[in-house]
Amino acid sequence: MPAIEQVLGKIDSNLDAAVQRLFGLLAIPSVSTDPAFAQDCQRAGQWLVDELKSLGFEVSLRQTAGHPMVVAHAKAKRRDVPHVLFYGHYDVQPADPLELWETDPFKPHLAETPEGQRIVARGAADDKGQLMTFVEACRAFMETGGLPCDVTILFEGEEETGSPSLPDFLAANRDELKADLMLVCDTGMWNKDTPAITTMLRGLVLEEVIVHGASRDLHSGMFGGPAINPIRVLGRIVADLHDDQNRVALPGFYDGVEDLPHDVAEQWHALDFDQQKFLADVGLSEPAGEHDRSVLEQIWSRPTCDVNGIVGGYTGKGSKTVLPAQASAKFSFRLVGKQDPDAVVESFRAFVRERLPADCRAEFLSHGASPALQLPFSSEALARARRALHQEWGREPVLAGSGGSIPIVGAFKKDLGMDTLMIGFGLDDDRIHSPNEKYEMSSFHKGARSWARVLDTLST
Amino acid sequence: MPAIEQVLGKIDSNLDAAVQRLFGLLAIPSVSTDPAFAQDCQRAGQWLVDELKSLGFEVSLRQTAGHPMVVAHAKAKRRDVPHVLFYGHYDVQPADPLELWETDPFKPHLAETPEGQRIVARGAADDKGQLMTFVEACRAFMETGGLPCDVTILFEGEEETGSPSLPDFLAANRDELKADLMLVCDTGMWNKDTPAITTMLRGLVLEEVIVHGASRDLHSGMFGGPAINPIRVLGRIVADLHDDQNRVALPGFYDGVEDLPHDVAEQWHALDFDQQKFLADVGLSEPAGEHDRSVLEQIWSRPTCDVNGIVGGYTGKGSKTVLPAQASAKFSFRLVGKQDPDAVVESFRAFVRERLPADCRAEFLSHGASPALQLPFSSEALARARRALHQEWGREPVLAGSGGSIPIVGAFKKDLGMDTLMIGFGLDDDRIHSPNEKYEMSSFHKGARSWARVLDTLST
Repeated sequence: MPAIEQVLGKIDSNLDAAVQRLFGLLAIPSVSTDPAFAQDCQRAGQWLVDELKSLGFEVSLRQTAGHPMVVAHAKAKRRDVPHVLFYGHYDVQPADPLELWETDPFKPHLAETPEGQRIVARGAADDKGQLMTFVEACRAFMETGGLPCDVTILFEGEEETGSPSLPDFLAANRDELKADLMLVCDTGMWNKDTPAITTMLRGLVLEEVIVHGASRDLHSGMFGGPAINPIRVLGRIVADLHDDQNRVALPGFYDGVEDLPHDVAEQWHALDFDQQKFLADVGLSEPAGEHDRSVLEQIWSRPTCDVNGIVGGYTGKGSKTVLPAQASAKFSFRLVGKQDPDAVVESFRAFVRERLPADCRAEFLSHGASPALQLPFSSEALARARRALHQEWGREPVLAGSGGSIPIVGAFKKDLGMDTLMIGFGLDDDRIHSPNEKYEMSSFHKGARSWARVLDTLST
Repeated sequence: MPAIEQVLGKIDSNLDAAVQRLFGLLAIPSVSTDPAFAQDCQRAGQWLVDELKSLGFEVSLRQTAGHPMVVAHAKAKRRDVPHVLFYGHYDVQPADPLELWETDPFKPHLAETPEGQRIVARGAADDKGQLMTFVEACRAFMETGGLPCDVTILFEGEEETGSPSLPDFLAANRDELKADLMLVCDTGMWNKDTPAITTMLRGLVLEEVIVHGASRDLHSGMFGGPAINPIRVLGRIVADLHDDQNRVALPGFYDGVEDLPHDVAEQWHALDFDQQKFLADVGLSEPAGEHDRSVLEQIWSRPTCDVNGIVGGYTGKGSKTVLPAQASAKFSFRLVGKQDPDAVVESFRAFVRERLPADCRAEFLSHGASPALQLPFSSEALARARRALHQEWGREPVLAGSGGSIPIVGAFKKDLGMDTLMIGFGLDDDRIHSPNEKYEMSSFHKGARSWARVLDTLST
């Protein structure tokens, strides 16, 4: 019997106890955004410290200005094996609105459904259940002879509030946290039977523009005509940002954007993605993105420009014949591939300035600029992880993109130069951030088995 | 000695007493918008009733849901003379901010300046001082043999709050108020030495558009690309509303817009209007209206389209990657000549609808639609008033336009079919609606003389 089969058997026989352990963590209301739960965040961190210590990790709870970090290290049984850094977060979203929960969000329980059991509690899927899949995989290895890779674990307690302490912590502990590869379990599967590896995260540039015109608000009766109207100027800028194919019209915007490899494009094309349903769920019927791209491409692998907010003049009830002195808009750009955030900012600002008529000036506020993250399709770690997941699930994992950004992953790439393998077992209907959050037992069980296989293939 | 010279002499000899009478009215703080001054509005109305009664008018104070109307009638000494309706308002703007007044706003006094005396108080120019010019002209006639025209006077006390009671009052008292011509003294002179007759008031169409897209706000990470963004749709609409000559691009918008008569165009061209200063006073340097029109034309005689407000998505501090379900904007159209407000509304709504992509719908709110008012340049009353003012001031009066709208004048035109002669003696620096409001003694004195001459010429 090969060693991995022993490890998987251990995970299977440990399952009931593993669920009870997860319940212990889920029972702690570690809501990071609400100061009333600060002690619970400490308790959750300490719970993980104790848990990892009992497995044989060298662990410490590191205080920050906010909630503490958990850092743990364990060596493999062999030398000259890869060193992985696993990241997860023990903090959770607030449980509100409480009245919509069918059971107490912090009294975890198993619900029986026709498709099997599920774990119900705040944080079941995001991210306590997911991070424990990795811990349980480590446990199974450690109880059957030792880890196949050197493992460092970093759990933070501020992910749901934007990870304010993380950048400084990374900078201060660079050497301790540096590894060959980063692993994250905070994403989803394609569906209940099909695993996914998220290889692409779009980057994000956030720019605000305030267009200033006259020195004060003017009466449109007196000045309507001769006085420039900043709302009109902004409207022109918004309109010009896309061409009639819905492509972003900023010069150079598509520099660094590459087409998908043929096999990935084919995989996406073959997916049972119901684009009509995706749109219909939010009241839409036609994709509004680039004309020649599928919806999946539009959200996973294509860059965008969005206006997230605009305001100027009178916005109350009724009317007011004012010509405002200023108007402002917030723009976000989702970036892919090798698009350079700084170049996008520069191109955008030049684009705006070129459209300013006489007597207008633009004030720019930057709210962040981060590049896209792309695990190279040629990566050896990716090839091994694909093999491991295929073995566990009997299906080729989907090489997914993610329309959103995960700033933490960017920070690890930027500060520690590490690529990240994002493998998660969440499902679209897990109701993360919502009442009655759940995590499928199959996700929890096969998730732990998946990590065991991934660690095993990475080490051979 | 012709009769009019006697009347003018009476005005001259009455001047000190006239100022004292005006002071009596100015001392009543008839602030219409603040319920705390409701009794003062009653007092001001009653003051006018008493004043007009003492002159021989048949007068009544008519209560409304708000502040009362004063209606007065007096017959001319001769029969078969024109019947004029004079309109003014006895209510005033609040005096706030009080600390910026150099003297008590309701303790009227005379200030001496190198150019002459001025009357300082809230309402001195808007509109108590102006309306008393007409009353003093009537007094002089009545003390020297009688009025040359039949005169009806209507004073209201709600002009500064949008005249809410006026439409119903007009409808209920149509026969009593109907006259051959309406006279209003609530406008300004061209400058201290040059009178003006306002012959054009721009009309006003107020439209609000709400563009609806998805059924709820979306996350731009998840939906940026395939989901339509109502702000973008609105930006396109705003941008398309003007062509590159700054002309309004609505089909049919300029139907009914006529060029100025040659002599009026020449008069405007010859005016000492400092367009650079006009713009520089509000921080601008270049006219932003139609390319081939002067600033004076742009505000007096040309129609415009303005965006008075726009709002959509996240408008707080920082950023939020939201794709809003809706965005809205408020538009105003200033109309001139024979532009049809209903046709403008219809064209605008069609214009918006044509620019709605799939999955977007537009909701329209109307906040009013009134046509422009134009006293025909060929009007006999206008010709006579020009002659009268020329005689008094030694200069041809400017045939001015007004960029703003005066809804009351529109209501009289629409409901009673009366043309209006707007002659006022305010100056740009009178600080109406602001602290230290004043009215020049020359405006008050020569204003009364002007009305005497106008009434005289109208009757001959």
